Amino acid sequence: MANEPVDLAEKLSMFSEHWSPKVVARLNDYEVKVVKVRGEFVWHTHDDTDELFLVIGGELTIQLRDGDVRLCPGQLFVVPRGVEHCPIADGEVQALLIEPIGVVNTGDSGGALTAAYDDSLA
Amino acid sequence: MANEPVDLAEKLSMFSEHWSPKVVARLNDYEVKVVKVRGEFVWHTHDDTDELFLVIGGELTIQLRDGDVRLCPGQLFVVPRGVEHCPIADGEVQALLIEPIGVVNTGDSGGALTAAYDDSLA
Repeated sequence: MANEPVDLAEKLSMFSEHWSPKVVARLNDYEVKVVKVRGEFVWHTHDDTDELFLVIGGELTIQLRDGDVRLCPGQLFVVPRGVEHCPIADGEVQALLIEPIGVVNTGDSGGALTAAYDDSLA
Repeated sequence: MANEPVDLAEKLSMFSEHWSPKVVARLNDYEVKVVKVRGEFVWHTHDDTDELFLVIGGELTIQLRDGDVRLCPGQLFVVPRGVEHCPIADGEVQALLIEPIGVVNTGDSGGALTAAYDDSLA
């Protein structure tokens, strides 16, 4: 066991690409990921799991079919399982995600924005 | 479903007591809690689960039997299941915890610092 803290800003400084979550820690059968996003993602649903977004930098809007949720740094939102959502950001956003191991970023939608599993920063 | 962000600073402003985690969100069968701590907690172990600490304000030391982990704001650490630990802080620390529903703060040790379950801020 490495008794080292995970510094979120440091992890975020180690990559630049958008919409490509990086695992930085594990919690039982969950993963903690950092991600940078900009622009609009794809509407999608995770049928089997909730998904936690915590904004670290920038302003993120999570579009839902019944309204938008706007997140500033220090604010989090849990998208319930089965709820279609689509993140969008005018500027770059740094965020932390927590979800079960193996969740694919584009959920049921797939497509070009589907990210490869990346735990190189864990 | 309330499509409202959870503002961690706002939640932390709503109470002052130490060592009493407050549930602010749920993620499947996990809970996201905020807590204020100061001084030394009690050595304890969670045999069945890892426990995530993310420091929001202040500086937290998580004492482990094989060394200390010092956490500044924006840094996290996951204490693995079965690993005895004891948080300590010189000044007040605000932190976020994530762990499965029903985890008791003092784990196997019990005692006076055992907090009542509190989801009044969720």
